Order: sequence, then structure tokens, then C-alpha cells
Amino acid sequence: MDLVSQNKCFEGMQQRYAHRSAVLNCDMHFSVFAPAAAVAGQKLPVLYWLSGLTCTDDNFSTKAGAQRYAAEHEIILIIPDTSPRGADVPDDSEGAYDLGLGAGFYVNATRAPWDRHYRMYDYIARELPELAESHLPFNGRRAISGHSMGGHGALIIAMREAGRYVSVSAFAPIVNPAGVPWGEKAFGAYLGDDRNAWAEYDACHLVAERKPELPILIDQGTADDFLAGQLLTERFVEAAGRAKVPATVNLREAYDHSYYFISSFIGDHLRFHAGHLNS
Amino acid sequence: MDLVSQNKCFEGMQQRYAHRSAVLNCDMHFSVFAPAAAVAGQKLPVLYWLSGLTCTDDNFSTKAGAQRYAAEHEIILIIPDTSPRGADVPDDSEGAYDLGLGAGFYVNATRAPWDRHYRMYDYIARELPELAESHLPFNGRRAISGHSMGGHGALIIAMREAGRYVSVSAFAPIVNPAGVPWGEKAFGAYLGDDRNAWAEYDACHLVAERKPELPILIDQGTADDFLAGQLLTERFVEAAGRAKVPATVNLREAYDHSYYFISSFIGDHLRFHAGHLNS
Repeated sequence: MDLVSQNKCFEGMQQRYAHRSAVLNCDMHFSVFAPAAAVAGQKLPVLYWLSGLTCTDDNFSTKAGAQRYAAEHEIILIIPDTSPRGADVPDDSEGAYDLGLGAGFYVNATRAPWDRHYRMYDYIARELPELAESHLPFNGRRAISGHSMGGHGALIIAMREAGRYVSVSAFAPIVNPAGVPWGEKAFGAYLGDDRNAWAEYDACHLVAERKPELPILIDQGTADDFLAGQLLTERFVEAAGRAKVPATVNLREAYDHSYYFISSFIGDHLRFHAGHLNS
Repeated sequence: MDLVSQNKCFEGMQQRYAHRSAVLNCDMHFSVFAPAAAVAGQKLPVLYWLSGLTCTDDNFSTKAGAQRYAAEHEIILIIPDTSPRGADVPDDSEGAYDLGLGAGFYVNATRAPWDRHYRMYDYIARELPELAESHLPFNGRRAISGHSMGGHGALIIAMREAGRYVSVSAFAPIVNPAGVPWGEKAFGAYLGDDRNAWAEYDACHLVAERKPELPILIDQGTADDFLAGQLLTERFVEAAGRAKVPATVNLREAYDHSYYFISSFIGDHLRFHAGHLNS
């Protein structure tokens, strides 16, 4: 991995790296915030942040204000991109924002033309950690979080990869992609018509099937325009309740889907993860 | 002024307004952060934030993370655009980033074709406060801050408008525009060749001439690529020292010109202004 740029931030370093991904079959970028102690070589825990539709690694880096809290709690942030990238990578034929580039949905695609590049599940759960954690001063403890499509990604990866993450959180996650228009479109394209394959990428299904034992935190704004049609947080509350899996779900009055919402509560999420990463 | 959009943020509201500017002879936008108490109608002090070259009111709103501190200290933020806007407004003929749109330099232009619209000094110091402060729950106390070109704007406006602002601060300000390439280009175009006119918009000149009595805080990164050629913070330190005007100037080791620098110290600046606005 090659350091492309870095900016000092809260006494640590905000960094951008480039690397070749064998899993995604293309060149990729990701961002890192390394607190001062990590810059000095001290081993720290890592929090992965998975972004939402249309985002790159830049949105969370510039808009969330998370560095302040990561510096305070001494947590390294690793912020991947949301899809494979490059001229060779297929995109939606109509350039839709919710399929193709910027919309990897954290699945391993099995259908052409997507299957040559769109393997974001393996990239996030395996390839990127193997690379980044061996180059950064990593102490062996990791957590994961994300927003919207990235909240979906964080939940499904944490639940499927039992024992790898000490905690998971999400802002406005797509908790039931197999049952809403965004997920039906993306899963249909990437995975085909087999709904059994879809279920393995659906948090409502996984919370019942896997009964995950790690702490789960979700924040959802009540003024989020996508709540009723795409997010349906109540389905996860119901599924987790039925499966007797504990989860904290905060409904935040009048907050929407934007980074103004994330910035307001990212400090709470960093504190939540710090409590588990540092215990 | 018309509310264009708003997002709940740190229990307050991040808002964007549109209005007709008579001074600038065009339609303008500006952003506001209203802490929860202001949304409820309580009168609060105001901090103006002036942005730098190429920026709009959006950059500081989305990247600085200032809302957290403004909410904590109960200060309304007013964030103007950096130049007149619209199809009728002349721009640099070569589209340069440092002249014309996005580069108003907070002066009242006296030369054609700029003089019909580029009157950012009067807009920031008079027209916008008269409008915004009468519509927002304003308690009569105001401060001003900014970055780079906007740090220059904050310093010159606060020093010329004695008694109107209780405190002024700046990140990486252009302290001596009359003596560096950015300012020579802009002042030459907007004000013509009369260097006496330039001096009235130059912080190094004004600190000696006006001997301002308000508290002054400046933060400057030592890894800022513009420090040696455009910012030259040491000239202000020298001019203020010779004039016996107190100013706090913090040189921040290895920080650069970016919003990662601003976000790291904006909390200190809000605390500085709160100490004076609320005293």
C-alpha cells in the first residue's frame, strides 16, 4: 500500500493509501486516521467505517468529524471505498446511483458482468484487513460501523464473521435489503434470482440465524426520507427481539439521513466502540 | 430571507437561506447554525465565518465540525458566500480561482467590470448583518473569524469597524494582501493601481493605523504550502508588535492549509470567542 497524501489532524495523521486489490481486480484507495500514538508506533485497535451509496473514502473523512473522538479514544479509523473502481469496472448502463460504481452493497457478486470485480464482502472482511492491519500498528482488536448501505455492510459482516469484531454500530442502516427496492435491485443484479443467496447478506435474516453475541448499536433519525421505504429499522428491532439478540436502537427525533446527523452522534459511537475495544 | 433547507445537527438546526442582495446586485445564499436555544427563540450571540478562495457557504458548514462547539457555547454561526454569484456577475476571463467568482477578497471594488457586484466588504460588514440579525434571535454581540482569504476579511473588517465585534480570530490569514501575489492580483483588478486604497484592506497596515482594541487570535500551520509565499504570518506579528497591539499567534507544528487543520482547532476558536461574547 502506497501513501498518497496525509494531513495532520487532531495531533494525528489523516492519510490516503492506494493499493492493488486482487479480490476486486482493480486499483483501490482507502483512508486512515492514525492517532498520534499510532503515528509514534504504538499498537491501537481499529474501527472500520463503511460508507453509503455514492460515497468514496472521502465523505466520512471530511464530513463526520470523527477524528476528534478517534484521537481522544486512541482508535485507528480505516475508511474503505464503496465499490471497485476504474475504467475496466462495469457500471450500471444508465449510470444509476444505486447500482455499480459507488454501490457495491458489500456482497460477492456471482452474476456477469459484476462477478469479475464486485466482491466487496471479501475485500472488506478479508483482503483489506490483511493488508492494512499488517502495515499499521494494529493491536488485534477491531470493530466496524457504517452509514446506510455501509450500515448494512457493517451489520452483515460483523454477524457473519463471528469473533472477528468486538462491536458493531450503524447509522440509518438498510437492515432488510432483501425486502426493499434498493436491495432488490442490487441483489438481483449481483446475485441473481436466488433469494437464499440474498438472505446471507440481510441483517434481519442473519440476526435470527446467527444469533450474534457482539454489542450492537444503531442510530436512526425519524426525519430520514428513506426510513419508510428503504431502511425500515423496525424490522430489525422485531427480528432481533424475536431472536432474543440484544441491540440498542436509538430513534433520534427530527434527524435526517445526512452527515449532519452522523456528525451529531459519531462521538457516541466512538465511545461505544472504545468501551469494547479497550476493555 | 428564505429558508432553502435545514438539517437537524447537535440538537440545533443547520440552515441555508437565499436572499436578494442590493449591495451585490444579485441573489445570494448563506448558511446558519442555530443552536437548540436559538431554535426555541432565545437570543444568542453570533459568530461570522468568512471562507477562503474557491469556497461557498458549504465548505465550513460540512467540513469544520464547528456545530458541536457552537451548540456547546450557544453561539449562532453565520456563514456567508465568498463572492457575488450568478450568470450576470463577471468572472475572471481565464476562470482563475483567485479572481472573480469565489474570490471576492472582502473589498468594495471600484473598477469596471467588478464594481457593479463585487462589494463584499459592505455586504459582510453591513447588509448581511442587518438582514440576518433582524431575522435570527440575536442578542447584540457579534464576533468574526475566517480562513485564508476569509481570515484576511475577518481581520480587516474587525479592525475597521471598531466596536462592532467583540473578538476576531483567523486560520492561516492573508495578513498582508498588498504585499503578496494573491492580493496584488485581486486588489489591482478590483481597486486599480492606487496603493493607498489597497492599504485600507490590509491587516498589517490597519493594525498599525487603527490600533484595534479587540482580542485577536490567529492559528497558522507550519506545513502550510502558502505560508512562505502568500500568508507571511510573521509580518503581522511584527506589525502588531511595533504598534503595541496584543495578539495571540499560534504556530501549529506540521499542520497544513486544509480543513483538517481548521477542524483540529476550531474548538479552541469557539471557546475564545465564547469567552468574549458571553462575558
